Amino acid sequence: MRQQPSAEYRGYRTAGIRLAEDLAPELRQGRESAERAALYAFHAFDKAHVAMLTEEGIIPHAVGAAILRAFRDMEQEGVEAVRTRIGGGQHSGEVYLIRRLGEEVGGWEHLGRSSNDLSAVGRRIRERDRLLDTLAALDALRATLLDLARAHLHTVLPAYFHWQHAQPTTLGHYFTAMAQALARDAERGRQAYARVNQSPAGAVILTGTSFPLRRERTAALLGFDGVLVNTLDACQDDDHQLDCFGFLAPLAAHLSRLAEDLSYWSGTELGYVEVADRYASGSSILMQMKTPTPTNRIKGIVSGVVGGMVSAYMAAKTATGMHTLDRAYGDAPLDAAFDDVVGSLRLLAPTLASLTVHAERARQRAADHFAAATDLAGALVAEKGLPWRTAHQICGILFRHCAERGLTPADLTPALLDEAAVEYFGRPVGLGAESIRRALDPKHFVEARTLLGGPAPDEVARQGQALGAALAADQRWLAERRQALAAAAAALEEAIDAILA
Amino acid sequence: MRQQPSAEYRGYRTAGIRLAEDLAPELRQGRESAERAALYAFHAFDKAHVAMLTEEGIIPHAVGAAILRAFRDMEQEGVEAVRTRIGGGQHSGEVYLIRRLGEEVGGWEHLGRSSNDLSAVGRRIRERDRLLDTLAALDALRATLLDLARAHLHTVLPAYFHWQHAQPTTLGHYFTAMAQALARDAERGRQAYARVNQSPAGAVILTGTSFPLRRERTAALLGFDGVLVNTLDACQDDDHQLDCFGFLAPLAAHLSRLAEDLSYWSGTELGYVEVADRYASGSSILMQMKTPTPTNRIKGIVSGVVGGMVSAYMAAKTATGMHTLDRAYGDAPLDAAFDDVVGSLRLLAPTLASLTVHAERARQRAADHFAAATDLAGALVAEKGLPWRTAHQICGILFRHCAERGLTPADLTPALLDEAAVEYFGRPVGLGAESIRRALDPKHFVEARTLLGGPAPDEVARQGQALGAALAADQRWLAERRQALAAAAAALEEAIDAILA
Amino acid sequence: MRQQPSAEYRGYRTAGIRLAEDLAPELRQGRESAERAALYAFHAFDKAHVAMLTEEGIIPHAVGAAILRAFRDMEQEGVEAVRTRIGGGQHSGEVYLIRRLGEEVGGWEHLGRSSNDLSAVGRRIRERDRLLDTLAALDALRATLLDLARAHLHTVLPAYFHWQHAQPTTLGHYFTAMAQALARDAERGRQAYARVNQSPAGAVILTGTSFPLRRERTAALLGFDGVLVNTLDACQDDDHQLDCFGFLAPLAAHLSRLAEDLSYWSGTELGYVEVADRYASGSSILMQMKTPTPTNRIKGIVSGVVGGMVSAYMAAKTATGMHTLDRAYGDAPLDAAFDDVVGSLRLLAPTLASLTVHAERARQRAADHFAAATDLAGALVAEKGLPWRTAHQICGILFRHCAERGLTPADLTPALLDEAAVEYFGRPVGLGAESIRRALDPKHFVEARTLLGGPAPDEVARQGQALGAALAADQRWLAERRQALAAAAAALEEAIDAILA
Amino acid sequence: MRQQPSAEYRGYRTAGIRLAEDLAPELRQGRESAERAALYAFHAFDKAHVAMLTEEGIIPHAVGAAILRAFRDMEQEGVEAVRTRIGGGQHSGEVYLIRRLGEEVGGWEHLGRSSNDLSAVGRRIRERDRLLDTLAALDALRATLLDLARAHLHTVLPAYFHWQHAQPTTLGHYFTAMAQALARDAERGRQAYARVNQSPAGAVILTGTSFPLRRERTAALLGFDGVLVNTLDACQDDDHQLDCFGFLAPLAAHLSRLAEDLSYWSGTELGYVEVADRYASGSSILMQMKTPTPTNRIKGIVSGVVGGMVSAYMAAKTATGMHTLDRAYGDAPLDAAFDDVVGSLRLLAPTLASLTVHAERARQRAADHFAAATDLAGALVAEKGLPWRTAHQICGILFRHCAERGLTPADLTPALLDEAAVEYFGRPVGLGAESIRRALDPKHFVEARTLLGGPAPDEVARQGQALGAALAADQRWLAERRQALAAAAAALEEAIDAILA
Repeated sequence: MRQQPSAEYRGYRTAGIRLAEDLAPELRQGRESAERAALYAFHAFDKAHVAMLTEEGIIPHAVGAAILRAFRDMEQEGVEAVRTRIGGGQHSGEVYLIRRLGEEVGGWEHLGRSSNDLSAVGRRIRERDRLLDTLAALDALRATLLDLARAHLHTVLPAYFHWQHAQPTTLGHYFTAMAQALARDAERGRQAYARVNQSPAGAVILTGTSFPLRRERTAALLGFDGVLVNTLDACQDDDHQLDCFGFLAPLAAHLSRLAEDLSYWSGTELGYVEVADRYASGSSILMQMKTPTPTNRIKGIVSGVVGGMVSAYMAAKTATGMHTLDRAYGDAPLDAAFDDVVGSLRLLAPTLASLTVHAERARQRAADHFAAATDLAGALVAEKGLPWRTAHQICGILFRHCAERGLTPADLTPALLDEAAVEYFGRPVGLGAESIRRALDPKHFVEARTLLGGPAPDEVARQGQALGAALAADQRWLAERRQALAAAAAALEEAIDAILA
Repeated sequence: MRQQPSAEYRGYRTAGIRLAEDLAPELRQGRESAERAALYAFHAFDKAHVAMLTEEGIIPHAVGAAILRAFRDMEQEGVEAVRTRIGGGQHSGEVYLIRRLGEEVGGWEHLGRSSNDLSAVGRRIRERDRLLDTLAALDALRATLLDLARAHLHTVLPAYFHWQHAQPTTLGHYFTAMAQALARDAERGRQAYARVNQSPAGAVILTGTSFPLRRERTAALLGFDGVLVNTLDACQDDDHQLDCFGFLAPLAAHLSRLAEDLSYWSGTELGYVEVADRYASGSSILMQMKTPTPTNRIKGIVSGVVGGMVSAYMAAKTATGMHTLDRAYGDAPLDAAFDDVVGSLRLLAPTLASLTVHAERARQRAADHFAAATDLAGALVAEKGLPWRTAHQICGILFRHCAERGLTPADLTPALLDEAAVEYFGRPVGLGAESIRRALDPKHFVEARTLLGGPAPDEVARQGQALGAALAADQRWLAERRQALAAAAAALEEAIDAILA
Repeated sequence: MRQQPSAEYRGYRTAGIRLAEDLAPELRQGRESAERAALYAFHAFDKAHVAMLTEEGIIPHAVGAAILRAFRDMEQEGVEAVRTRIGGGQHSGEVYLIRRLGEEVGGWEHLGRSSNDLSAVGRRIRERDRLLDTLAALDALRATLLDLARAHLHTVLPAYFHWQHAQPTTLGHYFTAMAQALARDAERGRQAYARVNQSPAGAVILTGTSFPLRRERTAALLGFDGVLVNTLDACQDDDHQLDCFGFLAPLAAHLSRLAEDLSYWSGTELGYVEVADRYASGSSILMQMKTPTPTNRIKGIVSGVVGGMVSAYMAAKTATGMHTLDRAYGDAPLDAAFDDVVGSLRLLAPTLASLTVHAERARQRAADHFAAATDLAGALVAEKGLPWRTAHQICGILFRHCAERGLTPADLTPALLDEAAVEYFGRPVGLGAESIRRALDPKHFVEARTLLGGPAPDEVARQGQALGAALAADQRWLAERRQALAAAAAALEEAIDAILA
Repeated sequence: MRQQPSAEYRGYRTAGIRLAEDLAPELRQGRESAERAALYAFHAFDKAHVAMLTEEGIIPHAVGAAILRAFRDMEQEGVEAVRTRIGGGQHSGEVYLIRRLGEEVGGWEHLGRSSNDLSAVGRRIRERDRLLDTLAALDALRATLLDLARAHLHTVLPAYFHWQHAQPTTLGHYFTAMAQALARDAERGRQAYARVNQSPAGAVILTGTSFPLRRERTAALLGFDGVLVNTLDACQDDDHQLDCFGFLAPLAAHLSRLAEDLSYWSGTELGYVEVADRYASGSSILMQMKTPTPTNRIKGIVSGVVGGMVSAYMAAKTATGMHTLDRAYGDAPLDAAFDDVVGSLRLLAPTLASLTVHAERARQRAADHFAAATDLAGALVAEKGLPWRTAHQICGILFRHCAERGLTPADLTPALLDEAAVEYFGRPVGLGAESIRRALDPKHFVEARTLLGGPAPDEVARQGQALGAALAADQRWLAERRQALAAAAAALEEAIDAILA
């Protein structure tokens, strides 16, 4: 008789069962760290599955009670420690039970379940938890941005277009723009969460089982918001992973851009902002150098996330959809993407809070190079009744003259403008010096833009309030999710209490 | 005086205005086809913008009326034809107006607008329209799948796992799984639509304008569901493009898998399904060959879509977010992705409808190779009270014996099972021949799986009804969107009528 | 009798042969433009294949002669025109022959060949030709860069590091660096060419044929440098496509960087370089704006190329390697990548040649912000014998003081340096004012760097000569390849002459 | 006086030098494991740099000797251990020296060097070493494939085309094809090596240094094959990383395909090959299952490698090329790609060697489904003088009849063929039964393909010999590289001996 003593049970895949040899040692490794991070989820699933089986009478009550009691003992010792000691992995619960209680008891646990069930439930629980953590960090960054925006309603700086000064705006307007973009990211995150937090439990390997599992019960005990109904779909489809990337990748793109902008503004010629020294690097050879480390690091994160997303899509490209070992090529990059994005969110908030803004320097730059040129044509329209295109062309000629002659905004005179007008349509336009001065003043430029969404301080303040209200709603959503998960965890313990009673 | 006669107006970028030379000819090309496809959107924006400017009194009423009248004339001739003749592109409206009405009138059109506004509005209108077209084709395919599922509730075939028979299921179960996956895609599409169909109009180039545009009005006249408030965000952020890819890429992955599965099932050894000859290719040399062309073509589309998505993310990785010429590297792949996905959806529906299913062959294969093995262990649990793991290990030994001795399901006897049991734990299990036969019958296997989401015919029929109801709701959503767009178009014409009156 | 008259021959895939229906019309389209571009290659293969078959006596001499005569007639009319009129595609040769000469003659052409052969030969001929065109354009850009480098041996500007001034260098040094990088690209291109220009002809569909083809002969007549021996490998492997991308992608990355640097240097604050007005864009609203169009466009090309490369790799990920319809998902992006890269190369050369360099402005900037700081520590080492790290730390303290006190290079005095030294190690260092001034002079900084590869003008001139010699060798290689292809084309005509004689 | 005692030296970036605060703790982490793997390379560079500085008299001889003696002491203790204890990283050498010998001595080490130099040299040394390891494992797999090919010259199996039987070939032909593909990969690897193994040392941060470094000497002492001359190019260009990916990615694609083919052939219906049980997995629920673990895992590796390559290209897309913190987003995926590829190569060799081939089953399948159909048309050409296309069409009709009537190869008769011929052109063709039988025999099919590269056993044996000779040459190349590196290491020790003497 080949059966090993239960105390030495090494799992179902041992020599002499289906296969004649033990698995080659070089094949045992590689997934440990991924599986270790999911041990808590396997544990919850082990308990919820057995509780449901017991409640439904699918396994004997005494067996169910003994198993659940053993899991409570395990918790005394520490779930991760015990499971890791045993060899870890998806089946660490069953191995623990069989070694401790014998196969007569522990051998019941896996009824109506498969490794695939375990990995599917583990991955979704991990993903939903990481989504919530990411959203919490994202909300915190949004709050920081809105705070900063409020503090910089009047801080004028040039906005760029292909490295050129396009127009003046304010730092408050910029931070509000980022907060608005991140609000969309948060929406994507919540939508991804809703698809991720659906229970595959009970789909087993493809077709469920002939045992009458109550899938809704397991789902509820695990905090899922619903059941992923069709069992084949639940097993073969990995689009929850793509959903996570569909949230993380645009967010990473936004963070990269925010970081790049801050780095760019910190550059030698611009110097509009400066991080605290603790967030800066020097150089082993360039003694004059102070570079902002967090933003220089974060501006590249989209590279990692998008590369990882490619791996996930590529791994999923395979016939019949059930090539489970391919999935590892998507799992690891997804984990790394979550790490990178959460880490960046958490790093950006204090970095931004530490920022020194060289506001006068920024305003001066916005005035030095015709950034407000648009409004000179605007003045010709508003004050002189010229059609826009006529005003534009005259100003175009004027600025060509300025470029050719090396003139700056301070040099502009009514005569120069009239010279351009004459060149264009044969007569002067007669705009006064004060009108020219005001038109080219970046502060005036900004304040005049009171239209919906514009950079006028009051309008930016108003946008900030609206975005703040949206943020508060999002934070409530997050709190409700956390409460729902806590309530499900409590319900699971109550169910176990009832069985043990 | 340099001014050209209006009749020869060539746009604002001519030699002698801001720059001394005309644009080099080799730089004029490359965007034509993309811009041609958006001419209708530029036209709508031209009209809505002027209507709003006129209503608000920002431009003289007579000017607004003359412009709108000219656009109505253009429509008589054909918008695309006229605009293309004029040179096409974003500014074809202004060129048309100035040539026809002179700069005194036509020169007012671009007030409070920029090229960026035009391209932003054009891109979003195109994207929303392509999203709706894609969702319509997607809904049609979902309907086809649900029809097919209903027709194949009892068509048993093996489900695969790394090219191995894992378990039996039914074609109805499979098509239902795909319909469930595509329902999630449709949800992603609607969510993308909601973010895409927000109006950037009035954001101008970055900061809006000092003229008191009523952005909500323009948005409503163009059928947008809201205004993308912050003007900087509206100009610099391309995540609407990423949203489109975030919908198209998982959908393309699903279509590729569906196509690959159908191709695989059409293979020489399997032969479960067969497309009509009109959807098949032969070979110039392999005279025996019949290959399913649509599925063999479609199974690769995810490659094109994901590559295009990479281009879009990569193009967006740049400082300050306003590198507009980079965007072309995302636009072209997005257009191609829409083409590929819509084309595939439209091709799959009739291909699937043409399918011949070799049901008996499929059922036989499901019976030939122990696909139902799971239920032999299930029978030991249900009938003999063995713990699952014990039952599993005994069966594992049994199937090793079968592999070693070349036995098939028909060869299985109670004695063979008992031999394995004795090897495992020293005693026979005594499962009868009829129990063994029934456990290994794929039809029985499928019918026993009545749990939520399982392949039992009644349960699949129930899933189909639920998915059908969801589909009907999605189709209503689509119809409402179309109606809303039609209503906005009508409102625009009414606004013009009112101005012209 | 079902046979159609030869004059109406529509190809081998017609209803009533292997399949009962004609191909659905919606499946006929999609590859036309790709196939049209390869018609010349199919034509050459048609001729070479028949010449070889005739020479070897595999087909009757009279048949071979009639076919080759017909192809000469086709050439009178125009190969592309005739083949396109006939319906185009790989089999346009056979269709032409059968319609003209009847199946008794034209039906021999495809002996020992397959569609796969045709597409494989067509793709490699196209790829090799596009590689040579790209390398020619690349060599031209290298020459332009070396010319510019020679003209700017003394043009000092700051080199950047995360937007900070790192050190001064010269434009000559920069252009030489780019020329060195592009020399590696050219090497990759030649290595790709050597693998691409191997003949798959005769591999047929997988296994060759039982007819005694002389594959070396066909290869030679088509200008291939060798035979891709194993027929299975020749049919199933697409790594020639990956080789093209392996050349194009790093090259595109270099071009993007070169373009981005030029755009950046053209920015408002830097303004070191300026393209001619014909290579610049204005704005429909920002009248002050002049942006360099070619570089702003080219800086994104790597996005398109890398996305296309992803598609190619992803399309190739499929079982058994012979999923020929997937290949279209790699072909189209490869064609686009060649277009983009060749177009960019051809655009960059005249754009660079048109550049105005604002040398004094650049030099001044290099002096304004401590870019040469490294050499102040160097002076302490060289003149005062301090260990490097000690010198570095003292200067670090000095530059912190400068930052805190708002001092510029002109403000530096021996006393300030001594203050830092005292702070560091308790004693002054006594470096004189003239030493400080010289150390911080960017021109001196550059001239002192005479080490191998450094920016000292003589050393850059020397590097330029070495790279010029390498370029000349590469140009000879290219000329030899062109000659070899011309010689093969001539040999093919001679072989045909001999048969027709 | 702020100077810390040397014994507590914490590196150059401490509070009170250039910056007022120490680096924030959260910024210190993240690169440790990458830098740990390169410690041996930093150590070699530390020694070679100081040896060169001493030889050239750039630093005092006594200082150089003391430093080199200290490094020898460090080696007694263990380089990795000491450097890790000290805090690790690029500057661990300098920290060690200053703590041990004081700044007066240790402070000289970094003269004429930068962190960038260190990371550039470290990365290239690591890359070259990993390239050689990968090539060694690749050569071993090539040898295994050639051995297997030799053993299976006569093992017939069907070759597939979109899951259809295309034609028969042999396993020997297949393994030879893979060996031919991998030979191209090895060529790419050697070409990458040649570009990677160029020394950036002495390029410092961008411009070299004003101290007269002898870069050729440092390069030689480190085993580099040459100097990357232009210092700007040496610092800013990361195409060596892209070169590594340009080698790894096609190789990974080949390995994925080889693995996928083996998995596919192991499937339930095909069952041509079977790995040893130690390389197989069972299932926790599908007791009948035996799946080949290594191939199921490896078939996905191209996903990881290509995703990583995307990250590297994307990270490199940035202005001015010196955004060093972005590089981490390429480094980590490159390391992972090397790990995956080397691991896969090492796993595939023993897995392949363990393979059981079910040759008779494979041959039978090749005979069951008209795989050899091509040669029936061939026989009509060869024996009956029909033009190829005529023969093809007749056979096409025949196989349609077979499909419609459910006939197998064994059912084919001269009468059936004549029926098709009559249908096509009104007369029978009269091919005899024995000719038909032989034409459809897969063994005959294979043996008749004696053309260059074909599957005929003798021809495959000949190909194997040629590929074996090429492999032997590649192995010699590898051995020479190893010898050259060993010789350089010895030369470095001799140089140190000479200084210490």
